[in-house]
Amino acid sequence: MQCVAIVGVGLIGASFGLALRKAGFTGEIIGVSSAAAIAAGFECGAISSQAMLAEAASRADLIYLAQPVDRILETIEKLGPLVNPGCLVTDAGSTKAQIVAQALKHLPLGTFLGGHPLAGKEQRGAAAADADLFRNRPYVLTPSGPETPAIREFREWLARIGANILETSPQEHDSTVALTSHLPQLVSTVLAATLAERNSDTLQKIFGPGLMDMTRLALSTPELWTSIFSTNKLEVLAALDAFVVSLGQARQAIEADNLSYIFNTAAQFAASIRNLSPKVKLN
Amino acid sequence: MQCVAIVGVGLIGASFGLALRKAGFTGEIIGVSSAAAIAAGFECGAISSQAMLAEAASRADLIYLAQPVDRILETIEKLGPLVNPGCLVTDAGSTKAQIVAQALKHLPLGTFLGGHPLAGKEQRGAAAADADLFRNRPYVLTPSGPETPAIREFREWLARIGANILETSPQEHDSTVALTSHLPQLVSTVLAATLAERNSDTLQKIFGPGLMDMTRLALSTPELWTSIFSTNKLEVLAALDAFVVSLGQARQAIEADNLSYIFNTAAQFAASIRNLSPKVKLN
Repeated sequence: MQCVAIVGVGLIGASFGLALRKAGFTGEIIGVSSAAAIAAGFECGAISSQAMLAEAASRADLIYLAQPVDRILETIEKLGPLVNPGCLVTDAGSTKAQIVAQALKHLPLGTFLGGHPLAGKEQRGAAAADADLFRNRPYVLTPSGPETPAIREFREWLARIGANILETSPQEHDSTVALTSHLPQLVSTVLAATLAERNSDTLQKIFGPGLMDMTRLALSTPELWTSIFSTNKLEVLAALDAFVVSLGQARQAIEADNLSYIFNTAAQFAASIRNLSPKVKLN
Repeated sequence: MQCVAIVGVGLIGASFGLALRKAGFTGEIIGVSSAAAIAAGFECGAISSQAMLAEAASRADLIYLAQPVDRILETIEKLGPLVNPGCLVTDAGSTKAQIVAQALKHLPLGTFLGGHPLAGKEQRGAAAADADLFRNRPYVLTPSGPETPAIREFREWLARIGANILETSPQEHDSTVALTSHLPQLVSTVLAATLAERNSDTLQKIFGPGLMDMTRLALSTPELWTSIFSTNKLEVLAALDAFVVSLGQARQAIEADNLSYIFNTAAQFAASIRNLSPKVKLN
């Protein structure tokens, strides 16, 4: 791997560039992005040159798509006639089924590997980039073709940047993140929107740290999320419907002053994803 | 103020004792609690002696009730015949209307002041006590009688321990925390319970930091929360119903790929409680 093109030099793209550098990559890193993102990418050292997509594709042996999902879908279509033999195209999009299908449609077999690093922070943009953003975080790969030498080399770089590599099908990825990422985002946003409708001077003063936790995701703006939800709509709606059913059960439990079961079930789950031994027992 | 009795030497009670010490209180601090809590309270320096409720009430000029809400209601009834003239009883319960009503019924007028520090942490118990737990946090008072010298002195101590004192009616307090505290708790618990029902090896591996935020409150066990919800049932159910209406609107917005309004409304609210200038504009 001599030359990497990062398409979309935001938080994820720039962090990938910095992580490669920290892991010892000495080749060229071409940024393909808006003028402002390119400037921020040079500033933090994530890219060493810039180019338009066609030129970058003609030189890169790894093309890393780190745009919002809708833009990744567009870029894959454009890349169809541009990709060199032996080049690997991979992406960091938050949904996988539509992206993988788009790649199967437009890119030569064996040139695409779907990916999704479960990493992020509140800040966006290359200015917030972090060489350790992927360290000890899940990095899902959704192979849809044969394992090529380029894929093997990319996996080695992911290991060097400290990512925990997992493999699933695109469909299993999407149904899982509908529950673990898209539903939590939606719930945080809807909670904040509910409070916004009932906002008052008193409400702005009387709250504790719990509300801050529960509305951190709600700081997200719609640009990223509209295409995540639109490309995982059925799974997100199914997750939402399951949540509404559970809310109805909780409502009955409140009316009956009988919250132990739902609280204990929830606490046990919350402990399990923290690798804590549960302090509670299920009835 | 020469002698303070702390009834319930858990996180809040022990932190109040430590905060008083740090602010210069040199009198006696009597702990009234279980044997284990008393031991932890001595260990961290939050209390200087222990007694049963009747003895503590006979000596204290401030009685600080830091138990779960249902226990506070019981203690107030027991205190009726025990409280000395000039003594102030105050509480740190998470709901106020039923507690204030109970005090008006059982305690002499002017001897009770309802309170609620909006402070806490994941850990419970005196072992996690912190002299700065109340610093720069809202501390709601719900006066229900005349301002007495004992109330004035208590307010001064709250100022010395760094609390941001706010005043509301018990009803306004309860309807506000139904939205800012009880609903977020319920949403976190129900989210975790929803995922628990769909748990899998894959689900346990593929999630990011957002899920950790959104399930931190779900670590709470039902002991504290059952009586909070039962003493604020109507307000909690109203908040829950408003949230479910907003979820229905969000569902329609997802189906229509039109999430900008709800995301921007939510982001603006989430920014406002952080004193951030909103980066978004409402349409």
